[in-house]
Amino acid sequence: MPLDFTAMYGEIITIGNELTSGRTLDLNAWYAAGRLTASGLHVTRITSVGDDLHMVSEVLKSAVEKSCFVIVTGGLGSTEDDITNQVVAEALKRPLCLDRQMFEMIKSHTESRGIQMTPSLEKMAWMPEGSRLLNPRGRICGFCLEEQRVRLYFLPGVPDQMRYLMDKVVLPEILVYFKTLPVMRQRILKVYGLSEPGIAEVFKELQGKTGEVLFGFYPHFPENHITISLRAEDEPKVIRELDRVEAKVKDLLGTYIFGTEDETMEEVVGRLLTERNLTLCVAESCTGGLIGHRLTNIPGSSTYFQGGALVYSNQAKQDLLHVSPETLEKHGAVSNKTAEEMARGVLRLLKANMGLAVTGIAGPEGGTKEKPVGTVHIGLACGAEIFTGRYRFWGNREQVKLNTSTMALDWVRRYLHGDPFLPGL
Amino acid sequence: MPLDFTAMYGEIITIGNELTSGRTLDLNAWYAAGRLTASGLHVTRITSVGDDLHMVSEVLKSAVEKSCFVIVTGGLGSTEDDITNQVVAEALKRPLCLDRQMFEMIKSHTESRGIQMTPSLEKMAWMPEGSRLLNPRGRICGFCLEEQRVRLYFLPGVPDQMRYLMDKVVLPEILVYFKTLPVMRQRILKVYGLSEPGIAEVFKELQGKTGEVLFGFYPHFPENHITISLRAEDEPKVIRELDRVEAKVKDLLGTYIFGTEDETMEEVVGRLLTERNLTLCVAESCTGGLIGHRLTNIPGSSTYFQGGALVYSNQAKQDLLHVSPETLEKHGAVSNKTAEEMARGVLRLLKANMGLAVTGIAGPEGGTKEKPVGTVHIGLACGAEIFTGRYRFWGNREQVKLNTSTMALDWVRRYLHGDPFLPGL
Repeated sequence: MPLDFTAMYGEIITIGNELTSGRTLDLNAWYAAGRLTASGLHVTRITSVGDDLHMVSEVLKSAVEKSCFVIVTGGLGSTEDDITNQVVAEALKRPLCLDRQMFEMIKSHTESRGIQMTPSLEKMAWMPEGSRLLNPRGRICGFCLEEQRVRLYFLPGVPDQMRYLMDKVVLPEILVYFKTLPVMRQRILKVYGLSEPGIAEVFKELQGKTGEVLFGFYPHFPENHITISLRAEDEPKVIRELDRVEAKVKDLLGTYIFGTEDETMEEVVGRLLTERNLTLCVAESCTGGLIGHRLTNIPGSSTYFQGGALVYSNQAKQDLLHVSPETLEKHGAVSNKTAEEMARGVLRLLKANMGLAVTGIAGPEGGTKEKPVGTVHIGLACGAEIFTGRYRFWGNREQVKLNTSTMALDWVRRYLHGDPFLPGL
Repeated sequence: MPLDFTAMYGEIITIGNELTSGRTLDLNAWYAAGRLTASGLHVTRITSVGDDLHMVSEVLKSAVEKSCFVIVTGGLGSTEDDITNQVVAEALKRPLCLDRQMFEMIKSHTESRGIQMTPSLEKMAWMPEGSRLLNPRGRICGFCLEEQRVRLYFLPGVPDQMRYLMDKVVLPEILVYFKTLPVMRQRILKVYGLSEPGIAEVFKELQGKTGEVLFGFYPHFPENHITISLRAEDEPKVIRELDRVEAKVKDLLGTYIFGTEDETMEEVVGRLLTERNLTLCVAESCTGGLIGHRLTNIPGSSTYFQGGALVYSNQAKQDLLHVSPETLEKHGAVSNKTAEEMARGVLRLLKANMGLAVTGIAGPEGGTKEKPVGTVHIGLACGAEIFTGRYRFWGNREQVKLNTSTMALDWVRRYLHGDPFLPGL
């Protein structure tokens, strides 16, 4: 029996002057489109409009006519620009009603912070008739409406909040609502150290061997993410097929795959350190604190992350880590020898099991012919063992810092796995 | 004489399955919107659609009805997906004609590379009747049409090519074509420490006193950005009016405004330190390196940023910064006394002019009734002077870290400005 795919067509509408003026990149539309597509739904149109009553109303009406679900983001806040509730009321002829639950939430929120309830805050509780709150117990507002059998979801424009509701509420609801949808599962494999053409070669290897499994490729600098997804009649079949294809991909990509699903590099490193009951400290020059920042983004990182030294200046490298003036003089601050002494120095200082050090030239200034911008040395001291290596990264200052931090964390991951480090220069 | 604003309204349409599937971020729409807005033109709608004849046709017709110019990108290549020429022909009822010039260009291009002319390459030379090539001598294809006095520009989806034609051909043409174009200028004011309702109150104060100046409000956690923009007949008038309104806003918001235009907090702090020839070092506990990371995102920060200590564990606080065990025992790691000793300790260690310290509970674990998650203490040592303060931040772990880093940097800014710190607990 053929599936009714037309029932799964939807649109995305993003609202905000910051979008139509080009001030802000529309990451919300991109995220929603990616998640919907990965779930086997089809997005036919993405429309961005300014905070303009007439225009929002028009695109909303057109979307209701053409689609089965509509995701709308933005315009739910308390400022004058936030017109979504009002537009929906007018466009769909549903009067604004005071939502008691929402009102109480705003009230308790303001009271807990000791701020006054204002008319502009109260406005957020006046919602179009028939609205249903998406997250009735949480602090993130968003609502759902049904209009001529079309599902309309209204989400905040704040990316974190929008993504949370999208993943936790909207997607699961839509997938249940469109019962014609067969089983659809997706796996995400995260790759570091292999470029897009390199991955394309791997995909070529797989051609003809992966049945109906769909591949997706998402560059996420400096990583690359691969999705493997499949739709089928029943769950066991989907799982079996995905397991088979995932094994093939892992076989081909090997240790380039550092994580799966939502795992970040710093999470993987944290998990490995915890499993082995080891502690880590860092000595950062060109990254300026980014490695420590990433490690401490993980809740509970205090059990394995001891701390570190930000040794941006040569003086700091000597004062904090006892890098020898002779080394700095003879090899320079950006050298394997300095990385080595930094790693050993921080390990001594903080009494951890592993000391990770980076020193390099993030640019745009400071490059030379021998050591161009993007030159980075990594040092890793594990007890008495020491490893050093040199890399050349491309991109602007922030990209060099980010890539350096990922490579350094990848060293820890590979060391703990017993895998060789990625080849440098 | 009132200006004909409708003459300057335009839309952007981007075509490609990679956009509606979320595989690719729509940088073309973002770029075109930004360039058009900066030139005083008004973008009312951005629509992305897949390579679907029917959908492209529909959005094209709707745009022609509502706008005075339309920028379309994508679908001009030689693959089967590239359907723009065909859609335009059908939607605007203009038969496809062989463009001799285009044909010759393709021919000489293929000959110079020793490749065969194929039907799919020739397809690119069949263009809707009345088309005018945008770049007749160059290798980048793109064309223009006029339909019911509406200007339609069709550009390639390849970002470099699209940007080149946009800047060199399309924008200059549009600006000449719409002779009524007035001057449009915008200012951005960046606010920290004042919430959305607080700013809404300020806007109310301004009501009726700001003439035709338009305000925009953009939350950018933990900051809030305000735009002030005006369109008028001539530049001196615009500048005069914007100066007047900006002064009023600055009067009301005072030291809450930390920067203007593209300036970031870390840039402002860096500029102030450079101007006063001072150096800074940091001692980070709960932020884990984020403050150092932000400071070193600024090129040239090595002249004023010495480095710092990441003292995540109590042991590290003692070993690196000589925070006394008595202080940690009696007041706890999250206290004014610890923040003070951290700031003094890092200042001594790194011999800078200012030492900035933060210690707090980023969550989700670790909170107590007396010190809930989000409790943060800041310490700032300037020579022999010492300042400390306690704050309570809201949000998840990353938000607490981000807010803490911004507040800490704001302390440096306010100290160098001679302004009081934001009130804490």
